[in-house]
Amino acid sequence: MDKLKLGIIGLGGRGQSMTHVLARMKDVEILAVCDEYKDRAEKGGKIARRDNPLITTDYHKVIEIAEIQAIMIFTSWESHIPLAIEAMKAGKDVGMEVGGAYALQDCFDLVKTAEETGKQCMMLENCCYDRFELMVKNLVDQGKFGTVVHCEGGYCHDLRGEIAFGDKNRHYRLRNYLKRNCENYPTHELGPIAKILKINDGNRMVSLTSTASKSCGLHEYFTLKRPNDKELIDAEVKQGDVVTTTIKCENGETIVLTLNTTLPGVYSRKFTVNGTKGMYREDGDVFILEGEKPRGFIRREMKMKGKNHVRRYEHPIWVKYRRERKKGGHGGIDYLVLRAFVTGLLENRYLPIDVYDTAAWMCITPLSEISIANGSQPVEIPDFTHGMYKNRTERNGGMYDLS
Amino acid sequence: MDKLKLGIIGLGGRGQSMTHVLARMKDVEILAVCDEYKDRAEKGGKIARRDNPLITTDYHKVIEIAEIQAIMIFTSWESHIPLAIEAMKAGKDVGMEVGGAYALQDCFDLVKTAEETGKQCMMLENCCYDRFELMVKNLVDQGKFGTVVHCEGGYCHDLRGEIAFGDKNRHYRLRNYLKRNCENYPTHELGPIAKILKINDGNRMVSLTSTASKSCGLHEYFTLKRPNDKELIDAEVKQGDVVTTTIKCENGETIVLTLNTTLPGVYSRKFTVNGTKGMYREDGDVFILEGEKPRGFIRREMKMKGKNHVRRYEHPIWVKYRRERKKGGHGGIDYLVLRAFVTGLLENRYLPIDVYDTAAWMCITPLSEISIANGSQPVEIPDFTHGMYKNRTERNGGMYDLS
Repeated sequence: MDKLKLGIIGLGGRGQSMTHVLARMKDVEILAVCDEYKDRAEKGGKIARRDNPLITTDYHKVIEIAEIQAIMIFTSWESHIPLAIEAMKAGKDVGMEVGGAYALQDCFDLVKTAEETGKQCMMLENCCYDRFELMVKNLVDQGKFGTVVHCEGGYCHDLRGEIAFGDKNRHYRLRNYLKRNCENYPTHELGPIAKILKINDGNRMVSLTSTASKSCGLHEYFTLKRPNDKELIDAEVKQGDVVTTTIKCENGETIVLTLNTTLPGVYSRKFTVNGTKGMYREDGDVFILEGEKPRGFIRREMKMKGKNHVRRYEHPIWVKYRRERKKGGHGGIDYLVLRAFVTGLLENRYLPIDVYDTAAWMCITPLSEISIANGSQPVEIPDFTHGMYKNRTERNGGMYDLS
Repeated sequence: MDKLKLGIIGLGGRGQSMTHVLARMKDVEILAVCDEYKDRAEKGGKIARRDNPLITTDYHKVIEIAEIQAIMIFTSWESHIPLAIEAMKAGKDVGMEVGGAYALQDCFDLVKTAEETGKQCMMLENCCYDRFELMVKNLVDQGKFGTVVHCEGGYCHDLRGEIAFGDKNRHYRLRNYLKRNCENYPTHELGPIAKILKINDGNRMVSLTSTASKSCGLHEYFTLKRPNDKELIDAEVKQGDVVTTTIKCENGETIVLTLNTTLPGVYSRKFTVNGTKGMYREDGDVFILEGEKPRGFIRREMKMKGKNHVRRYEHPIWVKYRRERKKGGHGGIDYLVLRAFVTGLLENRYLPIDVYDTAAWMCITPLSEISIANGSQPVEIPDFTHGMYKNRTERNGGMYDLS
């Protein structure tokens, strides 16, 4: 049996949970685990003990291993693109956790490196594999939503506790929130929306405006929860509490993204797709197909009320996944995105999320920062495909089964 | 008993239902009813038969009646401001149905006329009196939401049938959708949000960007539902299906408005308020007060699940309204907004929605049109109060009881 030989860099909370999923796959062999903190690297070694990997705090040693075909990057946001470029230059394919870029040029560099080395770079955007997102994509691909004209998405997740206390746990979010004001986490839900709108498969994002609210949530939280940390309480938090980004696509669709992570709230990705014949809205779980009576169902009560809907319109990926009763983290979506990566490389196929998608999705962060800094001025979004998006065939609509 | 003597102009569907509510009030006397169509004017006369009003197709005859103190304008959008100006110049106070302006200058003219004549002009924005909007305002005013930093609202209402067939019924929407591309109906939900953010009471809106999706919904609908109307099918529909407008306020809050009226969907005003200690979101009815566990309730199941919440935090206006068990259209909000107008004028008080609010809310329409036409460029929102908004006392927070 062919095995995909991997090196893993980054073993914080996210890296550990992804490594757990990989370490259970029979066609995967983890040759090295690395984290800048020794205790975390050793934790990775324990998770992957089946494969007896090299355990190191020096990522160069991972990239140098000739037998490794692909590098998994589960580090902090800042190092994603530099590590991906270094790995591809060393001849490795790359699977990279989600996050935004820090400068537009980094996105161009990422694409250029992939093109020059011929290596693949896939953002591991698990939300592309969510059951509801795929159900809607399935319906859109079948034309049942008519012409899709508008989508919304967001990352509404109360992270105040993690931001305020995570730095003690060596988390990287705090420094980002103190120093930047931008759509810092665009790819849930932009990833699934881009797949639905066929971004880089006949369509592309052409411009955006971004507007940030004032920043109050973190300061109030610091004052309440970390009253003895004068430095933190006196710090100016640059990141606005809510950032709204409106994107215009070449084919005329609009996308609205909301970042809302420093205020009380319930988790939502605000997934919304509006077509001329159908619509889906995550908040309140509203699902309409034209010609049928409006009927809404509640995601948290899905087992009772919504199950028949989602089963009826289930995407083939999920039909198969449920049949095989495989399980992974995050309701299976970590498993599914990692399977797409592993299977794709083992079968020498073009990956369903490619370097052009990765760059297009990540560039929203620095472009939103520019728009916010300039009073919401519209900013152009570049075409990283050099015009190839107009007529691509290698992905067959941009998503494929995990088999 | 003092009676408020009214003249009513505009007796289409909306005018008739508002006249029904007014005709039941004991402290109101309807001296004249007018519509450009004779059958409608006569219908108004029947509704107000208690007061034996003049029935006319010439609105000048209404405005000329010396005994009339206030003119109610229930006409099509285009004539709201011209009629309001003419009525104020004739010495009448004005209550005006909702809608957007057609040019920024019209809003300035409206304000100038009110200032020069000393007459009041109130937009009859019934959503300001909705039970949930007032509950949230009540909580915000008591500080229970902490610092409010972001609000969302919208007008999501599938009006395709009304637009496609309404012109046969002399409705005005079709011509607007064919000729304009803008946030054409901003005031539900901008009105309630403006009251919550104290716009024109210490705060103001300073700029906006607006982005329109392509226009597909109406053309597809015309093709399907009016297949023999070649003129309509061949017409270019200028109005984008979804218009997203992001507004920045002087005190740092952001407001996002969504217009979505030509696609399948469920009715929603997307009412959302995010503060540092609490939040409310209409879609899925999520309601959080910090320190309490997140608990959501479903508006359509309010009688079972949400009733205790909304009763517990009920706004005084609604406490009293429920106690008196009065009833009007739209769940009572038409009644409440008309009571505020009638009581305010009878008691010679400053109206809770004044000409500055009316102008500020209506100007969003022409400003959004400019932004859309210029690739989502940010556009300044003027201060109609000449700086008075910074320190106003006449409204005591902008809302008062109906008693």
